[in-house]
Amino acid sequence: MIYFDNSATTSMAPEAMKTYTDVATKIMGNPSSLHQLGTVATRLLDASRRQISELLGVQPHEIYFTSGGTEGDNWVLKGVAFEKKPFGNHIIVSSVEHPAIKNAAEWLRTQGFDVDYAPVDAKGFVKVKELKALVRDETILVSCMAVNNEVGAIQPLKEIADFLEDKPTISFHVDAVQGLGKIAVEDFMLPRVDFVTLSAHKFHGPRGVGILVIKAGKRLTPLLHGGGQENNKRSTTENLPAIAATAKAMRLTLTDDSLKRKKVGKMKAVIYNALKAYDKVILFSEMEHFAPNILTFGIRGVRGEVVVHGFENHEIYISTTSACSSKKNATAGTLVAMNVPNKYATSAVRISLDHTNNMSEVEQFLTVFKILYSEFDKIAR
Amino acid sequence: MIYFDNSATTSMAPEAMKTYTDVATKIMGNPSSLHQLGTVATRLLDASRRQISELLGVQPHEIYFTSGGTEGDNWVLKGVAFEKKPFGNHIIVSSVEHPAIKNAAEWLRTQGFDVDYAPVDAKGFVKVKELKALVRDETILVSCMAVNNEVGAIQPLKEIADFLEDKPTISFHVDAVQGLGKIAVEDFMLPRVDFVTLSAHKFHGPRGVGILVIKAGKRLTPLLHGGGQENNKRSTTENLPAIAATAKAMRLTLTDDSLKRKKVGKMKAVIYNALKAYDKVILFSEMEHFAPNILTFGIRGVRGEVVVHGFENHEIYISTTSACSSKKNATAGTLVAMNVPNKYATSAVRISLDHTNNMSEVEQFLTVFKILYSEFDKIAR
Repeated sequence: MIYFDNSATTSMAPEAMKTYTDVATKIMGNPSSLHQLGTVATRLLDASRRQISELLGVQPHEIYFTSGGTEGDNWVLKGVAFEKKPFGNHIIVSSVEHPAIKNAAEWLRTQGFDVDYAPVDAKGFVKVKELKALVRDETILVSCMAVNNEVGAIQPLKEIADFLEDKPTISFHVDAVQGLGKIAVEDFMLPRVDFVTLSAHKFHGPRGVGILVIKAGKRLTPLLHGGGQENNKRSTTENLPAIAATAKAMRLTLTDDSLKRKKVGKMKAVIYNALKAYDKVILFSEMEHFAPNILTFGIRGVRGEVVVHGFENHEIYISTTSACSSKKNATAGTLVAMNVPNKYATSAVRISLDHTNNMSEVEQFLTVFKILYSEFDKIAR
Repeated sequence: MIYFDNSATTSMAPEAMKTYTDVATKIMGNPSSLHQLGTVATRLLDASRRQISELLGVQPHEIYFTSGGTEGDNWVLKGVAFEKKPFGNHIIVSSVEHPAIKNAAEWLRTQGFDVDYAPVDAKGFVKVKELKALVRDETILVSCMAVNNEVGAIQPLKEIADFLEDKPTISFHVDAVQGLGKIAVEDFMLPRVDFVTLSAHKFHGPRGVGILVIKAGKRLTPLLHGGGQENNKRSTTENLPAIAATAKAMRLTLTDDSLKRKKVGKMKAVIYNALKAYDKVILFSEMEHFAPNILTFGIRGVRGEVVVHGFENHEIYISTTSACSSKKNATAGTLVAMNVPNKYATSAVRISLDHTNNMSEVEQFLTVFKILYSEFDKIAR
């Protein structure tokens, strides 16, 4: 089995799994409880928060635990919108954001907010000049992802941050769900960024846990009101075993992360160069300014699903761009925003590598690709 | 160690723990993925949903997974409010609801909704007559819990359901977080009820998972927009290991649940009758019409925290009413609603039993109680 679908989800690291079971078995208190079992739980919660904050280069009180990337994204969009309603109703998001951002923005539109989508160029990079032109007095939020989930384009966050430097009333959110481990932490955790979304299951942590970084002093209306946990910003009994496992997984992921990126980048380069030699292959990802793990391509005239199932027969697992939209047969949002003609966009498949993959798997993949390509070639003719 | 704080959180059942690790280790696909690993994940997700629906006596498509009780409560309140805004802006919740309901309702008030609190009597039961009188043309939602978390009062859901029978435009929500296993499922899963909130960690399931039952055809605006999971009602990558573990924990909890209730009720009765004999003890819970697991009492003149810490020194863990409010030193909401004078309310502590407790623990508790009582008696004099 070769798993090249790591942007959809990763396997939980054995060490993170062990942390989960240890905590779930041995630390039974509710952190909100007054007695000693609650205190022990609170201490571990604090330690996890501190460890994560150090890894991200922020303060512990800037770390908020959520149920995942979708909640983080929804919280920022809706939370900033409701919080800043008296000051403005205009939101700008990039046109290649994850559906968690786009659909939250579309809902806000039904609630009286105005949403603009910043366009991208043919490679999938946000056009910063066009984004700048969208800003107006009523703008309260700009949201742009760190790494695009469908083609891997690394977005020009620094340029956007520089532009927003003298516009303190505009909140800046970065969805870094596909960024952690794939680019350096400091490349998305920029000083000007106010909110950052992360998701544990994308970096070998457990499902059902995310992190929202809320920089000190930045306000947003809670999405979950209740018992007052997480500094009264995000209520619900803390998922301690999964939070501790997330801290563990993040530490593992960010240990030698630059070396891991090099390893992954080398595997991508081998596939990239090999696929380039095939006539009918269209490459939607490139090497420079793209995440080292994502390679999206298509075979002209062959639908993405057919390619996915072709590989599946050889126990190689890849994806039709993002997992979230794959089953709904929706044309990939990013490719449409890139102005890729529909007939090519529907051919797109995504390989997403991980440092746990190896070069032998890459070779097997390329061998199978060769077989499939010649089969498809006959059909397509 | 004696753990009598099971309403705050329960330990994860070893069988549920095993399910979690098995699924997290062996089933790595994202249910949204098109390939076979996704299909295997989807099949397990469907099986968990089906099993839970059968245990609750509803249809599989009426089960929605959330991150916990707080999300379920927030989703219903805000989701119904935004969905029904064109038809009315009035919401009725009982005055003894969990903060997840009350604080969500208070937030809705800032968004133009009108909220009324249905009062309770001196024992903590919702006064149905008064609740009825609050209903008006603009009423869109009535929310009432099954079992009160602070004193254990079983609310008159059937009476409310009967009253709402001919008022189909009013949604009826039941927070049954403290109800599952503590009263019969059919006593809160009434035909007239539209939405039911549950939380896994209250019945030996994992943290971070809840269930919202949404009866067929009942609409509510999503809280989490995004990739379209959960029938496009609650987006985010499904927390499959925890969901499967929840199904397992629920099955275990509802196996012989009536026998377990009898066992727990007997333990409560022994404590209840013993405490009654002490002069300075005030009992806030009773036996009849109260959950068999919750017993809230106070020692006159002694603050609840002092009692909790006194027991803690003997490794017996109890709580100052609800865990969520215990650390904020807030007077218990339910006791205030019951018109208990502040000086008595601040003395309140909650014992919450579980079928995993036993009579020997009850005896130890009572022995320690006797010691503590005589100590407190000296101080209080």
